[in-house]
Amino acid sequence: MTDSAADPVVDKTADPMLTSLLAAARGEVPARIPVWFMRQAGRSLPEYHEARGTTGMIEACLMPELAAEITCQPVRRHDVDAAVFFSDIVVPMKLAGVDVEIAPGVGPVFGEATNSPEAITRLTSHRITDLEPITRAVQLVVAELGARPVIAFAGAPFTLAAYLVHGRPSKDHLAARALMHADPAAWDALMSWCADRSAEFLLAQLGAGARVMQLFDSWVGSLSEADYRAHVMPYSARVLNRVAEAFPDVPRIHFGTNTAHLLPALGEAGATAVGVDHRTPLSEANALLGGRYVLQGNLDPALLFAGEEALQAAARRVVAEGSTAPGHIVNLGHGVPPNADAQVLTDLVAYLHSLPVPTR
Amino acid sequence: MTDSAADPVVDKTADPMLTSLLAAARGEVPARIPVWFMRQAGRSLPEYHEARGTTGMIEACLMPELAAEITCQPVRRHDVDAAVFFSDIVVPMKLAGVDVEIAPGVGPVFGEATNSPEAITRLTSHRITDLEPITRAVQLVVAELGARPVIAFAGAPFTLAAYLVHGRPSKDHLAARALMHADPAAWDALMSWCADRSAEFLLAQLGAGARVMQLFDSWVGSLSEADYRAHVMPYSARVLNRVAEAFPDVPRIHFGTNTAHLLPALGEAGATAVGVDHRTPLSEANALLGGRYVLQGNLDPALLFAGEEALQAAARRVVAEGSTAPGHIVNLGHGVPPNADAQVLTDLVAYLHSLPVPTR
Repeated sequence: MTDSAADPVVDKTADPMLTSLLAAARGEVPARIPVWFMRQAGRSLPEYHEARGTTGMIEACLMPELAAEITCQPVRRHDVDAAVFFSDIVVPMKLAGVDVEIAPGVGPVFGEATNSPEAITRLTSHRITDLEPITRAVQLVVAELGARPVIAFAGAPFTLAAYLVHGRPSKDHLAARALMHADPAAWDALMSWCADRSAEFLLAQLGAGARVMQLFDSWVGSLSEADYRAHVMPYSARVLNRVAEAFPDVPRIHFGTNTAHLLPALGEAGATAVGVDHRTPLSEANALLGGRYVLQGNLDPALLFAGEEALQAAARRVVAEGSTAPGHIVNLGHGVPPNADAQVLTDLVAYLHSLPVPTR
Repeated sequence: MTDSAADPVVDKTADPMLTSLLAAARGEVPARIPVWFMRQAGRSLPEYHEARGTTGMIEACLMPELAAEITCQPVRRHDVDAAVFFSDIVVPMKLAGVDVEIAPGVGPVFGEATNSPEAITRLTSHRITDLEPITRAVQLVVAELGARPVIAFAGAPFTLAAYLVHGRPSKDHLAARALMHADPAAWDALMSWCADRSAEFLLAQLGAGARVMQLFDSWVGSLSEADYRAHVMPYSARVLNRVAEAFPDVPRIHFGTNTAHLLPALGEAGATAVGVDHRTPLSEANALLGGRYVLQGNLDPALLFAGEEALQAAARRVVAEGSTAPGHIVNLGHGVPPNADAQVLTDLVAYLHSLPVPTR
């Protein structure tokens, strides 16, 4: 926990309802239970489809007005306690001139698979030259949202490498996991490059006014703890440490799925908060983490389809379990499913905001 | 552990090299380190493609001579210590007259999604009338393999339900996981039906001479432990208990992936052995399981692509970690990837058979 009295990130004159997420992220008592949803901006919202129309995904991410509009939509509709910058984990690669597109219904598709020392040398010669589309978009969001925080977004090196080595989405990320054992030097070059691009992407968003960050390592759960610590954690730590040096007061959320066996390592990589998926109760996660981290999560996305009674019961349980940790930000355990009903999310936020803030 | 001296399943006159898997599964010292591979029969073998040709997947499973041939191929090629019956988890549903096909590159596709009480009523009116294609195929395999055991194969109720409720493969199995909360009575009817069909499928294979069984709950890792114990474990237990009653001496292996948080529950469901994926070291799994179960696993399939040195080092580590358990059957942590090099598997079996059997 940092000393927020001396902290330029928190505006003490702001409406405490709008800064409840920042308070919880610092281990202070929030004015209301803070909640946001991973993938809250995007396919679950009709206004998203209207705004984006036929614009390609990466293209939309690089149009500042459009990216800002999409980022703000779920805040307006749901009254969530933060915006998360609308982007994609491959956007920093696109900005570095890498040949990548996001194919509808598939995901990121690269011009070549980065699965040889030569391909890694080609990839790692790329550098980001212009982050202006990112900084401009974040500035627009901050101007609209005021005291309500914007969360800076980036993919973690392993999840990026899982796409790069295969050249597209893959089951179980076998090619990336083979490379780390087969050629540690090539793996180091690849992961270092990914780490630096992710760090630059985050620093641009934070420099433009984002006041929290989340590092998404969605596929990290495919690793054993030993492989994570030996071959992945140093690079995620490189990202988190670069942020901590440049923006020491910014909370650093570290998220993955299927991480029941990796939670302590995710914290030790340099996070101040750990995102937990729906598989591990937050009270158990807090015990595994030694009570040292703010927690984020972990409503099962499946419950969005299970009716209000089951969903609200689960929300109360998540709030109770989260109250064992030094701080708690409510979220789903994974992203909003594209077919989720937006009204269910809006109602869930209102329900959470109506609950008493738990005592710690 | 059962009393194998009085056990009709083990032929004491058989070559102990060929029954090493049975010995390990009973917690006895095997004559060599037993190994087989999930999905050893199938796409990684050229002779499989030659034998199956353009025959559809389910059709191949229901042609006794072809299914037996495919089942035996990896034993002949790799000298693995068991055959696993070549089939698919939806075969018992097909035998019950359910409208299902296996679409190449997709997986099981049902005529309708079983996602309403009415659809569940329609589904659960189906019964298996003829298991002859299964018993005949297993008899042919047993006739060829002699003392080397055949492993009976079935999908667990949750993994079956994950396909049925969505009607086809789904990410995260949200529809099935929503149904268990939204309509517990409908869920009970669906899961009970799945459990009974899986049990009948296993009992047919065991009646025809299979001497081990494995229940595959591949997608169970998407559940929290609380949801597993409340909504899934009773039905998997129903399958395992029906086998235990009919064939008390047959080892019962229970397997899932992403189960670091579920291992004790998988054992308690009625297994004698627990299959562990590559994420949890076997020594840790054994501790979680209280030292009460034989373990199976857990080489990372990614290492099949990482070169002989890394693979053999991992094999030695898995054997050492497995020696902490009451018994250990070497396997991958998940199925053989379709693009695996068959020679790498053959060499791995020879390497494991060359290692000294660890003392316990």
